[in-house]
Amino acid sequence: MDKSYWRELSNPGLENPTFIQGLPGFGNVGRIAAHLLIKHCNAKLFAEMYSPTFPDCVAVSSKGTCHLPRYELYYATLDNTNLVIMSGETQPSFDDVLAHYEVCGEIVNYVKNLGCRFVITIGGVPLTEEKAQVYIAATSSRIAAEFMEKGAVIYSRGRIVGGTGLTLALAKENSIEGVCLLGATTGFKADKDAGLLVFKFLMKALGKEIKEGL
Amino acid sequence: MDKSYWRELSNPGLENPTFIQGLPGFGNVGRIAAHLLIKHCNAKLFAEMYSPTFPDCVAVSSKGTCHLPRYELYYATLDNTNLVIMSGETQPSFDDVLAHYEVCGEIVNYVKNLGCRFVITIGGVPLTEEKAQVYIAATSSRIAAEFMEKGAVIYSRGRIVGGTGLTLALAKENSIEGVCLLGATTGFKADKDAGLLVFKFLMKALGKEIKEGL
Amino acid sequence: MDKSYWRELSNPGLENPTFIQGLPGFGNVGRIAAHLLIKHCNAKLFAEMYSPTFPDCVAVSSKGTCHLPRYELYYATLDNTNLVIMSGETQPSFDDVLAHYEVCGEIVNYVKNLGCRFVITIGGVPLTEEKAQVYIAATSSRIAAEFMEKGAVIYSRGRIVGGTGLTLALAKENSIEGVCLLGATTGFKADKDAGLLVFKFLMKALGKEIKEGL
Amino acid sequence: MDKSYWRELSNPGLENPTFIQGLPGFGNVGRIAAHLLIKHCNAKLFAEMYSPTFPDCVAVSSKGTCHLPRYELYYATLDNTNLVIMSGETQPSFDDVLAHYEVCGEIVNYVKNLGCRFVITIGGVPLTEEKAQVYIAATSSRIAAEFMEKGAVIYSRGRIVGGTGLTLALAKENSIEGVCLLGATTGFKADKDAGLLVFKFLMKALGKEIKEGL
Repeated sequence: MDKSYWRELSNPGLENPTFIQGLPGFGNVGRIAAHLLIKHCNAKLFAEMYSPTFPDCVAVSSKGTCHLPRYELYYATLDNTNLVIMSGETQPSFDDVLAHYEVCGEIVNYVKNLGCRFVITIGGVPLTEEKAQVYIAATSSRIAAEFMEKGAVIYSRGRIVGGTGLTLALAKENSIEGVCLLGATTGFKADKDAGLLVFKFLMKALGKEIKEGL
Repeated sequence: MDKSYWRELSNPGLENPTFIQGLPGFGNVGRIAAHLLIKHCNAKLFAEMYSPTFPDCVAVSSKGTCHLPRYELYYATLDNTNLVIMSGETQPSFDDVLAHYEVCGEIVNYVKNLGCRFVITIGGVPLTEEKAQVYIAATSSRIAAEFMEKGAVIYSRGRIVGGTGLTLALAKENSIEGVCLLGATTGFKADKDAGLLVFKFLMKALGKEIKEGL
Repeated sequence: MDKSYWRELSNPGLENPTFIQGLPGFGNVGRIAAHLLIKHCNAKLFAEMYSPTFPDCVAVSSKGTCHLPRYELYYATLDNTNLVIMSGETQPSFDDVLAHYEVCGEIVNYVKNLGCRFVITIGGVPLTEEKAQVYIAATSSRIAAEFMEKGAVIYSRGRIVGGTGLTLALAKENSIEGVCLLGATTGFKADKDAGLLVFKFLMKALGKEIKEGL
Repeated sequence: MDKSYWRELSNPGLENPTFIQGLPGFGNVGRIAAHLLIKHCNAKLFAEMYSPTFPDCVAVSSKGTCHLPRYELYYATLDNTNLVIMSGETQPSFDDVLAHYEVCGEIVNYVKNLGCRFVITIGGVPLTEEKAQVYIAATSSRIAAEFMEKGAVIYSRGRIVGGTGLTLALAKENSIEGVCLLGATTGFKADKDAGLLVFKFLMKALGKEIKEGL
């Protein structure tokens, strides 16, 4: 195995879906928000991505089974919005720059072929103030302004490290618009509150009502 | 030399052999168990694998000769069970993730072409209790259950690092069933007891009697 | 994305331009001098280079937009001298040797195709004495002597690390003559004085008058 | 530039030359011995090897010129013995295993095409006793025995790191016989005595008289 590949379990056949990526990382905000969304939408697994740049380490389940590290793609339709949601239990090593470019490039190519027209990546950023907040960066100032109107703050003059920033920037290279949602977190442990905050913001941005008490 | 290659010394021509991998690693459990098996079966060397991801360091024998680092494949027939056994004096560097994927992928392809239908990888895991124990992970819960009946314990919620886990997970990707046997060890030095324990368990799992006092 | 590529915004169509490279690095001398030159000449952006060896980290502007890390090429005509000037906000990781060879090789190929006949790379070197000074190395002793006459000192028995030295040495391999201008700096922070000193020396070397008080 | 290449300055047209490699490394023994041999034989430069795995760092001469890091091949005829001697000012990074395999594989292919039938690599090893000594490893026990008769000692159960061991082991893979000569050294600085000792041993092994006082 010397390059990334996809295993397709079914063909979701969605028109112009919005792609949402939430991978493990700082405070695990991206992965938590993605899993809340998968659960909320009752999304279905339809594809897996494998890569030799993922850790060479297999996790064993409570039943004693193991499989290669992978990213998982789910699809769902929420009212009239088609969604493709990607999460995973891993990422390439933090300092393997080439791996991040290759893997994020693969992802952007794949979702482009699915017909995705808009990309939302979710991650965490170090908390700079006490207030819970969603920060954003976008592929254009128009989109940044739209999300600011919904309550987010521009992550001005910051740097977005790893797949969260790279997938968005590579989407832009492929003429796909998008936005990055960053939940402020201390990052010392999996931050469920930050994940939930970004999830709620995302639902609002998608024009969906979320019942309180979730 | 920029990729792995095999040197074939002879063609074992075995039907549906079981592949057993025991490489150096934690406590050297895998390598010790594989060498006990090679000796016990009087197995014959039939192929060698070379890779530019192996250490750039050649060992000198007592006769003054040296050769490239390599993996060695042996074959044997134990009663009616055909075996292909692989060991070696080295592994790719611990943190060269890409190398582990490439080398383990090469191995799985090679033994698949030999007709192997079942893979057993052997390694060591850190001792979590005083009791000598064989832990397992498998490609399916059915196989995990079979090996539990023979006295092994599921390595539940653990992580198997390097070639021991990766060869098994890549075999599963290629529709080959298998199991990983992990001997508990302190790992501070070559652990002959843990290697012997896994060897005895393996023989029992293969349905072979081992005379006491081995 | 698994290799470098160029995005061409326009075709400058210059005859035999001189290529000037000033990237971030020690004291940021190269980048500062290049930007002074771009501003002085009112140079126009005409091409961008992207590479998977650049950091996997995207910067966010004050407007909330982000893009992939990249090198930027500008062109200008200063009196009768045609210039192609390259700068950027990043470089490959310091210790990724292969990346530096690949990226600098790409650059040399690209500017060779533009018709460049002379290459000037700009960088910083650790201050060895109190005096502000421009050090040089060249592709031939004749060129070194020419720049010495203009007040520079040979960087004798020194070592030039990264893209500043490599682009020059690769140009030489491609039969393009050139020189490397090194501003002495403590390197602890962006050194505007050293950048300005090299810029002024460069203008003098190009035969241009610079008004005092710049 | 993304792979190694050779620049051929002339065609030595030697029959069955012996190839001698002496690169920088432990105590610089290999490079010192190779340069003594080049000087002694008045050997002529005929080829250069460049590689993107060499350091991205260019050295500046006292005349102010610089060039890419490279290996240099010289040829000479000493009485009736044809020699090809390789040295250089650099090696790939110590821990870039893949680079060592690629570069040494390139070298072995090249000298095989030149018709070389015997390879001698020279390096340094940590001093294990006070006595100056040349240690050896060979591609066969017969050759090891031949060099022992000339006063060398087998580097028994040792490990030879980097290009010195790897070129020899890759030569063996290509059915070329050879030997590795290792000068014992403390390695703290360039060890001229160890280099001279190995040079003298080499001349003796080649059947040449060396005048005392060299």
